[in-house]
Amino acid sequence: MAPTYLIGLDFGTDSARGVLVDAATGAQEAYHVHPYRHGVVTGRLGPTPLPPGFALQVPADYVEAAEAILRAIGAGREVAAIGLDFTASSPLPARVDGTALADTRPDEPHAQVKLWKHAAQAEAERLSTMGGAHLANFGGKLSGEWLLAKAAEMAGEAPALWAETARFIEAGDWLVWQLTGREARSLDFAAYKAQYLGTYPDTGIPGLAGRLTPPQPVGTAAGRLTDAWSARTGILGAPVVAVAVIDSHVVLPAIGATAPGTFVGALGTSAAFLLLDAETRPLPSGLEGAAFGAVLPDLWCAEAGQAAFGDVLMWFVRAFPRGATIAESFDAYTEEARRLGPGAGGLVALDWFSGNRVPLADANLTGLLLGLGLQTTAAEIYRALVEGLCFGTRAILDLALAAGVPVGRVVMTSGLAHRNTFLVQVLADVLGRPVEVPDVENPTALGAALHGAVAAGVVPDFTAAAERYGARSASLYTPDPGAAVLYEGLYGEYRRLAADDTLRTAMRALKRARR
Amino acid sequence: MAPTYLIGLDFGTDSARGVLVDAATGAQEAYHVHPYRHGVVTGRLGPTPLPPGFALQVPADYVEAAEAILRAIGAGREVAAIGLDFTASSPLPARVDGTALADTRPDEPHAQVKLWKHAAQAEAERLSTMGGAHLANFGGKLSGEWLLAKAAEMAGEAPALWAETARFIEAGDWLVWQLTGREARSLDFAAYKAQYLGTYPDTGIPGLAGRLTPPQPVGTAAGRLTDAWSARTGILGAPVVAVAVIDSHVVLPAIGATAPGTFVGALGTSAAFLLLDAETRPLPSGLEGAAFGAVLPDLWCAEAGQAAFGDVLMWFVRAFPRGATIAESFDAYTEEARRLGPGAGGLVALDWFSGNRVPLADANLTGLLLGLGLQTTAAEIYRALVEGLCFGTRAILDLALAAGVPVGRVVMTSGLAHRNTFLVQVLADVLGRPVEVPDVENPTALGAALHGAVAAGVVPDFTAAAERYGARSASLYTPDPGAAVLYEGLYGEYRRLAADDTLRTAMRALKRARR
Repeated sequence: MAPTYLIGLDFGTDSARGVLVDAATGAQEAYHVHPYRHGVVTGRLGPTPLPPGFALQVPADYVEAAEAILRAIGAGREVAAIGLDFTASSPLPARVDGTALADTRPDEPHAQVKLWKHAAQAEAERLSTMGGAHLANFGGKLSGEWLLAKAAEMAGEAPALWAETARFIEAGDWLVWQLTGREARSLDFAAYKAQYLGTYPDTGIPGLAGRLTPPQPVGTAAGRLTDAWSARTGILGAPVVAVAVIDSHVVLPAIGATAPGTFVGALGTSAAFLLLDAETRPLPSGLEGAAFGAVLPDLWCAEAGQAAFGDVLMWFVRAFPRGATIAESFDAYTEEARRLGPGAGGLVALDWFSGNRVPLADANLTGLLLGLGLQTTAAEIYRALVEGLCFGTRAILDLALAAGVPVGRVVMTSGLAHRNTFLVQVLADVLGRPVEVPDVENPTALGAALHGAVAAGVVPDFTAAAERYGARSASLYTPDPGAAVLYEGLYGEYRRLAADDTLRTAMRALKRARR
Repeated sequence: MAPTYLIGLDFGTDSARGVLVDAATGAQEAYHVHPYRHGVVTGRLGPTPLPPGFALQVPADYVEAAEAILRAIGAGREVAAIGLDFTASSPLPARVDGTALADTRPDEPHAQVKLWKHAAQAEAERLSTMGGAHLANFGGKLSGEWLLAKAAEMAGEAPALWAETARFIEAGDWLVWQLTGREARSLDFAAYKAQYLGTYPDTGIPGLAGRLTPPQPVGTAAGRLTDAWSARTGILGAPVVAVAVIDSHVVLPAIGATAPGTFVGALGTSAAFLLLDAETRPLPSGLEGAAFGAVLPDLWCAEAGQAAFGDVLMWFVRAFPRGATIAESFDAYTEEARRLGPGAGGLVALDWFSGNRVPLADANLTGLLLGLGLQTTAAEIYRALVEGLCFGTRAILDLALAAGVPVGRVVMTSGLAHRNTFLVQVLADVLGRPVEVPDVENPTALGAALHGAVAAGVVPDFTAAAERYGARSASLYTPDPGAAVLYEGLYGEYRRLAADDTLRTAMRALKRARR
């Protein structure tokens, strides 16, 4: 019998990629990346100048990327299931037949996809002041990056286009619609980006209710790949297409993080954390948002993050190079910093180089270095920055613990977690807990494939998907007891500084002065 | 007629130097440096291990240096006067004939000179708790670097040697005794280092009263160079030798700073400030000490300082080099920092890299950098360090102004003030006042020569000495009004941070953790 495959598609900010997985062995047999033709559109859309803060994408680019990837990795293969993840919130207006308004309105900003990083800040603030039960799990306020704010922006600024809009829909859901010919929205997008809680909230945006449709859970089938798409791509077997997933959520089954009490971090230029919980309780104070059953069935999942993470270290080695290349500088600093003891330089850093997301939600805070003396070395500063980043992570984990969430596992993933073993060891020492870094290729796209597998019934649920196709091993970082004791004291200083209003006031004043 | 000369001798920590000045023209005609044979003795004195904190010198080294310098620059010259300055407090025990106990006790630590940086901390604290009117002008406490603490240390730890001691005397006064054959102590040493205020204080140190002798004012003659010394050095004319002066005080006439309302700074690795005042008033809060008529006749002079100054910038360019040499790095950073506006990086630094001397007198405070972001450049940090140092200077000047001292002139001297024109311009902008940097060679040794000139009656007083022999021109740095306004705001942030108890507590905790 010919082998059967799973396909996972991962739609990121600048490009999409796909992975082909052997459904019997779990082996990744093909991988393909396709950049978006128009990339991220800022400044100008064709002849039309864009306001500052506008960040758009062209929906046809996603179709082009999907076709290229599916053909490259799937042509001639028997495919059982396709899953896909997408940036969010990245909504667009569509007609009732699923065609994008953008197709016939290429120069009209409000007809395009408003990418996740496009912030409709004024609308978000207006909607937040209205209050409502839908804000309870989101710290009482909407983000300008979310769907409701972007819908309000379009209704207010482009009423004629809004009148033509039959559906206002996340790009991930829209692409599933293109692939299957059926509109089948994802509860994941709806819950986190449109504050769906059994119903969509009534926010007074004219006509919005009719432009949103009820979502269905992740891991369910949206439909099958249409004959037209099978013909365009050469894929065989009419695969099931799963409902879409938010890109930062999809990785969980691929790294074996499907149980309550798991704290998962994606350590990149910034850091994003997910906290899985079985109990219904108030959102731990300071975390950014939570929803039930939207990321994985029957689990609460709360979100949090550090606005700057790997980019703080990148900033340091770029500003103060120690070698001919960035990699050489990283190696030199890491090598020297590793030989120092915890807090050996007598320094402590606040990691707020891009402000603080959790728990203060204040972009106007800044980084800080304290303890500088004439004996301070560059490597001591590098180490203090690493430690400060880990203290920031611990401050987030502590919010969960303070709220009574029983955190049993800490799992870190993404590039930095694999590359910077020194940082992960410091993290284990600072948290005073073991940290797992699962060994798996392309975890995000693989996670998407596993959503397909669950939706198609190849496996009964996500836990089974994780066991069968997820990471088979992990690097385990065990805290050094002596280091953990030292870090308890240093973390206390970090916490006291982080709580110091005088510092925050000075930071905001300096930020204003810089502008 | 053959020209007549003045000689100034400057006895520093590692070496002594002398300058020969033509008494008619003021021209500096010769200059000679002589390092001390034994340098600074720490760790071990011959076979004797030294306790930590001991920093000794061998008195015979001063005699050797004086002879070498006087011969090198003075042999065959008609010399009218010799003045000399010395580190302080650097006392030694002597016999009643002026011979040093050290001459016959070369391996006995307590028989040597206890150099200014030798701190008898425990004795200082004990004596401070006893209180007394002599502490009123010194912020209520004695320093372990001062004579009284060192006398108590010797009396307590080496009672047999103390019993042999007829005189406990500053090395500068002792050297004048050697040159003239007469004991003639300086009011400058007595007032600042032994808290002499008409009488020496009664501190209960057994037998101390008899071991100190009354001082005489600066600018008076201690005696004439003995025939023996004239013979040893070839100096002609039996010059008058002035009473000695503290090295940090002697420069004033050489740079033309002899009037009340002058704020004088010596900007080196650390910064030392003198504030001249005509009025009797309480010591401005936070300044370190003051005395009347001891530095210059009929003037109060208060002392203050920043524990780290030029060494902060040296630390930065060494830790983060920008060129093949230190000088290249300084040039590169200065060039780039100069192009930035005031506070352009949105950074503020606390300059406490070696703790804070004034007004907090706390060696356990540390440097701080606030406002760091991913866009921060190395040159912005360099500029913030320069600005932080200048804020520290302003904080000291403001103490004087707050106490009502009418400061009319700001005069900066020593190496850094001449080399780092960028820093001096920032200082003028931060102070919002013109800053003068007098143009004069070897100002310290020249100042000593002018003390000789006054003592010998070559000129009637110090103001006349300054006019005739002092700096003939100065570089004037005028504040840029726009920059001054910007710095008002930034300095406000510096002040608020400097007053933040949370920060200080964290600094002290980190310093403890480092030890």
